[in-house]
Amino acid sequence: MELQVLLVAGTHGNEINGIWLFDEWNKSSFLIKTFGIKAFKVVGNPEAKNAGKRYIHQDLNRSFGEGEFISSKTSNFERSRARELVNLYGEKGKKSCQIVFDFHTTTASMGSCLVVYGRRAADLALASLIQNQLGLPVYLHESDKKQTGFLVESWPCGLVVEIGPIGQGLLNSRVISQTRLILETLMEQLHQVKNLNLFFPDQLIIHRHIKSIDFPRDEDGKINGFVHPLRQSKDWYPLERNDELFCKLNGEIIRFEGNEHYVPVFINEAAYAEKNIAMSFTKRETWKLKKEWKQSLVELVHQKQVLSLQ
Amino acid sequence: MELQVLLVAGTHGNEINGIWLFDEWNKSSFLIKTFGIKAFKVVGNPEAKNAGKRYIHQDLNRSFGEGEFISSKTSNFERSRARELVNLYGEKGKKSCQIVFDFHTTTASMGSCLVVYGRRAADLALASLIQNQLGLPVYLHESDKKQTGFLVESWPCGLVVEIGPIGQGLLNSRVISQTRLILETLMEQLHQVKNLNLFFPDQLIIHRHIKSIDFPRDEDGKINGFVHPLRQSKDWYPLERNDELFCKLNGEIIRFEGNEHYVPVFINEAAYAEKNIAMSFTKRETWKLKKEWKQSLVELVHQKQVLSLQ
Repeated sequence: MELQVLLVAGTHGNEINGIWLFDEWNKSSFLIKTFGIKAFKVVGNPEAKNAGKRYIHQDLNRSFGEGEFISSKTSNFERSRARELVNLYGEKGKKSCQIVFDFHTTTASMGSCLVVYGRRAADLALASLIQNQLGLPVYLHESDKKQTGFLVESWPCGLVVEIGPIGQGLLNSRVISQTRLILETLMEQLHQVKNLNLFFPDQLIIHRHIKSIDFPRDEDGKINGFVHPLRQSKDWYPLERNDELFCKLNGEIIRFEGNEHYVPVFINEAAYAEKNIAMSFTKRETWKLKKEWKQSLVELVHQKQVLSLQ
Repeated sequence: MELQVLLVAGTHGNEINGIWLFDEWNKSSFLIKTFGIKAFKVVGNPEAKNAGKRYIHQDLNRSFGEGEFISSKTSNFERSRARELVNLYGEKGKKSCQIVFDFHTTTASMGSCLVVYGRRAADLALASLIQNQLGLPVYLHESDKKQTGFLVESWPCGLVVEIGPIGQGLLNSRVISQTRLILETLMEQLHQVKNLNLFFPDQLIIHRHIKSIDFPRDEDGKINGFVHPLRQSKDWYPLERNDELFCKLNGEIIRFEGNEHYVPVFINEAAYAEKNIAMSFTKRETWKLKKEWKQSLVELVHQKQVLSLQ
């Protein structure tokens, strides 16, 4: 069977640039180059989009659980929608897709980047191809028991694309262009893998998730400090000991007290305040590209027709 | 009776910086200098704030009608809330206020600015005092029959403060500092008027509302073009003929075809898309300060104890 790719925009209903791009693409099929790769495009959370909200009952991108929920009934919109998407576009679905790309935006100054969840070989191979083409940073999200159930994890291979900063509900020329460029590059690279024109780099630079930190809060749990002006919009800039993190209106400054040169990401993402995340700390690491990553991606794209790679 | 001022934040529930500042101020009364001016502070739309939305049923800042609604019953939250605020803090209310300041934020790159609605003498006098202190641009909103029912119009004197760009639902150090500075300057200037230390400038620079323009839309009324990258974030920059306004994904560019040097404001404010406003055009004008403006403000602050100004 031919490779099929699922493209999702609006997994969060108030991240509208990808949704808008897909709408326009539906009107003019030539708008995005897909290099002959068969793709389905869907709005992840259409109900939330209509309501102008991130989600209706719970974050859709934390609603993709394991096994049991696939058949169970629920009145929770996002759990039901997650099941619907997996049933239709999952590996065993009627419109079976092997790879998924999930297009997000963020209020943090992340520029364009990729997020991978865990260390799946095919994800890392694909991320390295995109990093080689566009130079995008890659955030490896792992070891965070509080944040689970991500959409891409329900497919054999999947990447999240994050673009920021952009306010929620706001259409923006830069974000649209960046989304389009990354989308076309993803399709082009899959096309190359399909044709076995393999140009993998020797290494992948990743930003490995270490931990997230919360805003300062008072005894009632209310936020009583904000991201320090010297930290605001400084995603991807390594921290030094005593660097400013937050400040309060009384002048108090909360500083970074570690010795590690953590690299903060998702600084002041509006939707994360409710998740008690003011920013996340990562470690920047350079990983040698592994043969089994390439093998995994090639096998997936070629639908398990086993190939021997050099 | 002593002058009393109403301070409103969160007239739109997802403009959270002012709300947060008021919350902190409630915990520490010394946080904001009020120069002895008696002030009440309220969250304009607490329901919408809790829901993380701009409004529940309709825009609160278009819900302040004339006369008839004051006593009528309604299940519309914002109409009911508008009535409640006027009944309590209006001129005839139990906590009668003569002046109101309404703190907003915008996703447009407006910096800090003041908005006045119509040409009320006391508003213009107060705006000129603030412009003289802080250099803020003043947007005069008038002659727009589609946009009516603004909060400040229900008080004898009132200014809107707009600060941007900032995404909806996002706490930001710069916006908090700017809000605090403008709030204190407003209170200080009222204090000066109260003490008859009058330092009015000779002139007021205003940006007079001419018209608003919509996004390009397709036959179904859906937005099919976005603000051109050369126009995005260029609030307050005068237009030249043939300047780029919007573009579409097919490369089509929509240009400004007038000869007037209109100054665009509220470019790409997220909440205005539903109002069919992509940006507004203004004319920049320098007005000589009028004696009757000063007279009106002084009389209001001194509660009609008639004073003769030089």
